[in-house]
Amino acid sequence: MGKNLTTRSEDYSKWYNELVVKADLAENSGVRGCMVIKPYGYAIWEKMQAALDRMFKDTGHQNAYFPIFIPKSYFNKEASHVEGFAKECAVVTHYRLKNAEDGSGIVVDEDARLEEELIVRPTSETIIWDTYRRWVQSYRDLPLLINQWANVVRWEMRTRLFLRTAEFLWQEGHTAHATEAEAIAEAETILDVYATFAEDFMAVPVIRGTKTPGERFAGAVETYCIEALMQDGKALQAGTSHFLGQNFAKAFDVKFDTMDGQQEYVWATSWGVSTRLIGALIMTHSDDNGLVLPPKLAPIQVVIVPIYRGEEQLRAISEKVAPLVKLLKEQGISVKYDDRDTHKPGFKFNEYELKGVPVRLAVGPRDLENGTYEVARRDTLEKKVVPAEGIDAYISGLLEEMQEAIYQRAKDYRDAAITEVDTYEEFKKVIKTKGGFVSAHWDGTPETEERIKNETKATIRCIPLDPKPDPGACIRTGKPSPYRVLFAKAY
Amino acid sequence: MGKNLTTRSEDYSKWYNELVVKADLAENSGVRGCMVIKPYGYAIWEKMQAALDRMFKDTGHQNAYFPIFIPKSYFNKEASHVEGFAKECAVVTHYRLKNAEDGSGIVVDEDARLEEELIVRPTSETIIWDTYRRWVQSYRDLPLLINQWANVVRWEMRTRLFLRTAEFLWQEGHTAHATEAEAIAEAETILDVYATFAEDFMAVPVIRGTKTPGERFAGAVETYCIEALMQDGKALQAGTSHFLGQNFAKAFDVKFDTMDGQQEYVWATSWGVSTRLIGALIMTHSDDNGLVLPPKLAPIQVVIVPIYRGEEQLRAISEKVAPLVKLLKEQGISVKYDDRDTHKPGFKFNEYELKGVPVRLAVGPRDLENGTYEVARRDTLEKKVVPAEGIDAYISGLLEEMQEAIYQRAKDYRDAAITEVDTYEEFKKVIKTKGGFVSAHWDGTPETEERIKNETKATIRCIPLDPKPDPGACIRTGKPSPYRVLFAKAY
Repeated sequence: MGKNLTTRSEDYSKWYNELVVKADLAENSGVRGCMVIKPYGYAIWEKMQAALDRMFKDTGHQNAYFPIFIPKSYFNKEASHVEGFAKECAVVTHYRLKNAEDGSGIVVDEDARLEEELIVRPTSETIIWDTYRRWVQSYRDLPLLINQWANVVRWEMRTRLFLRTAEFLWQEGHTAHATEAEAIAEAETILDVYATFAEDFMAVPVIRGTKTPGERFAGAVETYCIEALMQDGKALQAGTSHFLGQNFAKAFDVKFDTMDGQQEYVWATSWGVSTRLIGALIMTHSDDNGLVLPPKLAPIQVVIVPIYRGEEQLRAISEKVAPLVKLLKEQGISVKYDDRDTHKPGFKFNEYELKGVPVRLAVGPRDLENGTYEVARRDTLEKKVVPAEGIDAYISGLLEEMQEAIYQRAKDYRDAAITEVDTYEEFKKVIKTKGGFVSAHWDGTPETEERIKNETKATIRCIPLDPKPDPGACIRTGKPSPYRVLFAKAY
Repeated sequence: MGKNLTTRSEDYSKWYNELVVKADLAENSGVRGCMVIKPYGYAIWEKMQAALDRMFKDTGHQNAYFPIFIPKSYFNKEASHVEGFAKECAVVTHYRLKNAEDGSGIVVDEDARLEEELIVRPTSETIIWDTYRRWVQSYRDLPLLINQWANVVRWEMRTRLFLRTAEFLWQEGHTAHATEAEAIAEAETILDVYATFAEDFMAVPVIRGTKTPGERFAGAVETYCIEALMQDGKALQAGTSHFLGQNFAKAFDVKFDTMDGQQEYVWATSWGVSTRLIGALIMTHSDDNGLVLPPKLAPIQVVIVPIYRGEEQLRAISEKVAPLVKLLKEQGISVKYDDRDTHKPGFKFNEYELKGVPVRLAVGPRDLENGTYEVARRDTLEKKVVPAEGIDAYISGLLEEMQEAIYQRAKDYRDAAITEVDTYEEFKKVIKTKGGFVSAHWDGTPETEERIKNETKATIRCIPLDPKPDPGACIRTGKPSPYRVLFAKAY
């Protein structure tokens, strides 16, 4: 199996698209903009879900499920929200098909038109706050700390597997609080959860910050975000956590009796990460040979390939491998022994390299004699002959080492790709040539932000959290600026 | 907190509806026919998912994800399938809203009409088999053993929480095989998985069988099912597994190269269980005091309620309880210590009884002196004073005992509710008065089945698996019948 993968330097975008398909992660479906997530890609999502779900529960959240449909009128209730989402949504207008009278097939039954159209949820604030009105009466009912794992639909015109699809999978948290301070603390707690998940599990270094008003979520007072850097120097927003103020409580009339007998509107947050994270994972670590997966999210962490001629050699190898497989599984390591006789070892090596399996063991007759395995690690492609004795401990150590090494390599790349500039000439040059994050002064106005975007395609990715005071002059207007913000071209 | 629950004997249906809402499992939403699954109800679903997912993976299946939308034309391809589903589906016709010109709000943008309407999936055979065409070329690509956890929509006119809702959550397995025998074996394997899950986890005894042609899934050659009996004597179909023959392969042109170089159509199965199982769980075990949950699916297995006056007593109790909580958690038992000072013990007892927490411990000052706990079990409502020493082992034994006892009680009820009859008079009488399953002879024709249904509202729930030969005469027509089938009124 030749991989025939376009290289990153040839065409990064093409490399990505090919890799997603060839590594069996996902593919386009017969429905415009909707993807099929294949078993290998879905297994990565399951590992992500398990880790995130654990972190949500450890911070006091519970899962629930709300309807996929949202009555059209709900959207009207929060003004900026409808602006943000109405333009790209799937609208259900009928509830029945029927046989065409001319026998040409099935058609929409015009007698089955809905009184009010239903929107397939692009996000669930409106339907959830309509529900919270019934759940919240008193301060005793607060906080509500609820998360939902669900599919959502946004009618994107240009789609790319995982990065931007009409339907995607995500989790969306929606919390309700008695005080502003508590809601802000919640939004920040979740930002921490997201950043920790990105760095510790995905091995993707992220910058935490807040969005400028122009880049905020439709309906939010403050949007917190984590921003990652891809290997082509473009940024990718990997997760957002919104402090919604009392906007949705006011829109849906959700009030509560305070401890001292007053009535107040509830304070809110919402937050989400999606299957887009799989795109970020791929683009951060993978190389021209295929995927590179951090061990903590790899569906298969170790693969063992026998090198043999004839049944007898295979039998001897299999006998030796069986107890190792058992030992690794007992340690919670997912391991596959690939003894298929339909494919040659070279084909298998290629396949597992393409699929980013972190550790590959090969074992042939000579290894049996010498009591060894050949161990190849996917990130560096290094090979090493290791004694069979104690190899389980060696592998578990290697997996930890690789998790750290993959993170460190991504972090070194990211750190080197943050450039401080003080003039607009420099700014334009860096954005055009080097890419990456550009740390620069901005006068704080949406007009300047918009102008820079139009002139350079770079946007303000975030205002870093707790920016250190560093007064300067806006690169575009020369007006005063209290601290630097991070610009980049972005996905 | 008074429970004020309608009793089962007063009005079983009302009892069920009230219980679902009062026990915080689910409620109706602002969207017709769609429910909100509340955290406590969703926690039961998560436990069900975890157990089923493990069983699917242990039998070689992998998860994947397919689009929520199905192009209308896909439905046309399998004739009986479109008949079965076209009449109750949500149809997406537009992809944008816009501001109304008269400023009255948002309206559907008629310029954004889809060329081809999209159906919100009622089940995914069509979109999946359209995908499998790309995945299957050779016998080496088979079998495909794939499952999906997803939401689906069927535009039901009369809905009931969990039992029949317009949107519901489920899993749907879709497998592809090289031979007919292998596909049939797969459908039967899954029937075993479903029956094992129902009995071992839900503590719901089920009868395995096949459906009559009239009750088969739209597009299936054979539908296997498990049937349970509710406390009102009505049957509930708890899961189905379909052998689809080559119907979908032919409709979507999915062929493969056999080992000897021929081209053949692929053989298929599909199978699913849904959030309807939560309805079955509630209706099988619960009583006039509220939910009764089998320990294996209870979100909270043990609750500990302190009985105290004043801070000091509470502190002493909490100190004693803390190590027990730790000990139980270490054994994988989910335990809650409810030390809220906003509610009295009586209120808490009521609440946990309503919510079906299997084991309740109460501990007051006298228990501290005596070194005891008061242990109440939810199924029998028995209370017992138990020494604190060794209580963790006592509890874990009690949970196992309760799991078994709850199953046995349901099984005794079910077994006593199977009545053999040989005449139509008897049949009508039993269906009308006693209810339950009626085991009777049927001549095997759809006409007789339909007639009996119209006359008695009873349907053939299933032909029990491997029926023992027992020749007789059809209760309705007197024509010969090789074995008995099971009739019942059903949900």
